[in-house]
Amino acid sequence: MKTNAVVAGVGMTRFGKHMDRGLKSLGAEAARAALDDAGLGVSDMQAAWVGNAAAGLVTGQESIRGQVVLRSIGMGRVPIVNVENACASASTALNQAAAMITAGMYDLVLALGVEKLYHEDKRKSFAAFSGAVDVEELAEIMAGLEQRAKQSDSSEAGSGAGEKRSMFMDIYAMAARSHMKQYGTTAEQFAGVSAKTSWHGSMNPRAQFQEALTVEQVLADRMIAEPLTRSMCSPIGDGAAAVVLASPRKARELGLDSSVVVASSVLGSGWDHDLGEDGTVEVFARAAYEESGYGPGDIDVIECHDASAPAELMYYEALGLCGPGEGGRMVDEGATRLGGRIPVNTSGGLLRKGHPVGATGLAQVVELTEQLQGRSGKRQVEGALVGLAQNGGGNIGNDAAAMCVTVLEKNS
Amino acid sequence: MKTNAVVAGVGMTRFGKHMDRGLKSLGAEAARAALDDAGLGVSDMQAAWVGNAAAGLVTGQESIRGQVVLRSIGMGRVPIVNVENACASASTALNQAAAMITAGMYDLVLALGVEKLYHEDKRKSFAAFSGAVDVEELAEIMAGLEQRAKQSDSSEAGSGAGEKRSMFMDIYAMAARSHMKQYGTTAEQFAGVSAKTSWHGSMNPRAQFQEALTVEQVLADRMIAEPLTRSMCSPIGDGAAAVVLASPRKARELGLDSSVVVASSVLGSGWDHDLGEDGTVEVFARAAYEESGYGPGDIDVIECHDASAPAELMYYEALGLCGPGEGGRMVDEGATRLGGRIPVNTSGGLLRKGHPVGATGLAQVVELTEQLQGRSGKRQVEGALVGLAQNGGGNIGNDAAAMCVTVLEKNS
Repeated sequence: MKTNAVVAGVGMTRFGKHMDRGLKSLGAEAARAALDDAGLGVSDMQAAWVGNAAAGLVTGQESIRGQVVLRSIGMGRVPIVNVENACASASTALNQAAAMITAGMYDLVLALGVEKLYHEDKRKSFAAFSGAVDVEELAEIMAGLEQRAKQSDSSEAGSGAGEKRSMFMDIYAMAARSHMKQYGTTAEQFAGVSAKTSWHGSMNPRAQFQEALTVEQVLADRMIAEPLTRSMCSPIGDGAAAVVLASPRKARELGLDSSVVVASSVLGSGWDHDLGEDGTVEVFARAAYEESGYGPGDIDVIECHDASAPAELMYYEALGLCGPGEGGRMVDEGATRLGGRIPVNTSGGLLRKGHPVGATGLAQVVELTEQLQGRSGKRQVEGALVGLAQNGGGNIGNDAAAMCVTVLEKNS
Repeated sequence: MKTNAVVAGVGMTRFGKHMDRGLKSLGAEAARAALDDAGLGVSDMQAAWVGNAAAGLVTGQESIRGQVVLRSIGMGRVPIVNVENACASASTALNQAAAMITAGMYDLVLALGVEKLYHEDKRKSFAAFSGAVDVEELAEIMAGLEQRAKQSDSSEAGSGAGEKRSMFMDIYAMAARSHMKQYGTTAEQFAGVSAKTSWHGSMNPRAQFQEALTVEQVLADRMIAEPLTRSMCSPIGDGAAAVVLASPRKARELGLDSSVVVASSVLGSGWDHDLGEDGTVEVFARAAYEESGYGPGDIDVIECHDASAPAELMYYEALGLCGPGEGGRMVDEGATRLGGRIPVNTSGGLLRKGHPVGATGLAQVVELTEQLQGRSGKRQVEGALVGLAQNGGGNIGNDAAAMCVTVLEKNS
């Protein structure tokens, strides 16, 4: 939808492995940072939307996650809505908050995303990912594979049944192999995405990994699912990100920083469609372009959902930055590097900044806001006026279960 | 907030123990029923809000619960937002849906609440309830109690630490004892609530329990936590409820049944406040009265959050149906029985209709809508024009973590 919410403040924790910290500690840090950035207090907030995807399975906080986190900074009484859309939970929180501001329902609201994935018991961390598909369907598929494996002793079926934990990476790997076959895309080009993004991440003090990798290092890393090596896959992580939104009227009245506005926020869901037909990224990016009045050529900086390096390369095409099959050439030309035609994932993206799933969508908005405000330091995209964030979550049929595309613009 | 969404259709499953059915089966039945009732199809819906509180812990469906359920009836592409507020998840879904309709963001939307609590492994069912408080705080309290029990061998501390599963009933029992002490309320009066509601439930084919109980039977039932016997406590259950909302304009255009409108929907959160100070029910009911323009004397039928019988009696006071301490007299006078001054929980309430937590708030709206439309059969409140639903969820400090009060009115 077309929106007009002012981004009055942004804040986030460093993403990473925070074994000694829980949801409350992480969420409170990000929320306070966003409020401080806006120059506002807890009591100014009229409502909050809180995104989280996995706390039930990881920490046992199955319910009222937002109330528990926000009570620790003294927020209560106002409506707190816990929202969930797997890896797109935080952008869903922003979408709902921006819609309510645009509708005139509130003047000042908080959108918070928080996730705690690391746990001493690693099975808990991985269980969360298995919960982002249709679990009844998954159980049937697994039972079928085990049945087939018993009957045929087929190693293919056997490996499928045993590798639950890398299921999402198997899906990405399959798509990558198909792209290689159809367009001649190479593993070196996928590695080029990781190398580029690791360089960006090396300049982000809030990134989980801050080492700049070469293409050779990426290719030589441990193989996860052909052609994906470990550094082509996003890690698990802990962290939180928050945004304070204001109505244009209230922002003027209080003299808030109104330099960045959410111009459009499109949320959609996956559906059963044929492979080859336009998927969630194409469809909802198109809608976001239409509603914001900007085209792919107008975007100055992008944060996309690079859960894997091949996914980012394919999103270049889906977002209309190049034609079908031309993603590899974008990498060769360095078009998406800082200094290139259209820098992508200047934050280090999911691959290097990290991917605490329920925080990711808002961390993208934190990065873009700071870029449009000219405060990204060494990672600054000079003169950036328009930014786009793309955040997908879960899996349904052969596509994302939830997809959110947000366009931010610099107020002129 | 003041709202104007038309209740175009309602539907629900029977609540109860559905061992052979999952989220998809239950949610699909309710959603289809609401669409059929509205005379609309899946493809007419422009967005959906789906409430669920416990699927992560009970079924493993930690994420994208709404997408998984709604895909089974062919709904996708449109925004699907999974919302959670413990036992108030479904009213939160309705609140968000009604806000978006009122704001003009959409013309036709679905609010669905679905819960699957029964599981072969009963620990999974009970784990869900422990997840509706601050789990870090709970762990500290439990550790402290165990420590004290070790040191002093105190049976009080020991029973506290061992009885996690009835924690919510312990809270209700403590409040009940305090009410008895302060106002002379009796166990017979609490039992009177259960007896009254069981009679209502005996006339509701969708209720989990359909046996009418006497006060004597309620008092003679197994003791759970003094003075609460088993039939003063809501059971766990499985079920789903759904509502189709329409904008007044669209309802007119399509000739939909526009006889019932959501006049106001107030959602708020708990905060740390002193006992004795007005709590979430008082505060948000007052807001709902103000916004709807109706006072307690204008309400014809109420569905309240009777997770325990004493809670209902105390809500009579908190909702302003009588003065402080007069709840017991309301029971003695039969004021809240069908045929009385202000019938409460004609559906059988949480006590007898059942309490699949993430579906409860919408089931209340299903009952009230049918009452205002004059199609409640033997349970009909004659000439009902205004209904109120009160739905609370989780616990924070000494109060509910989330509270939602909805006022429905008959369109004149």
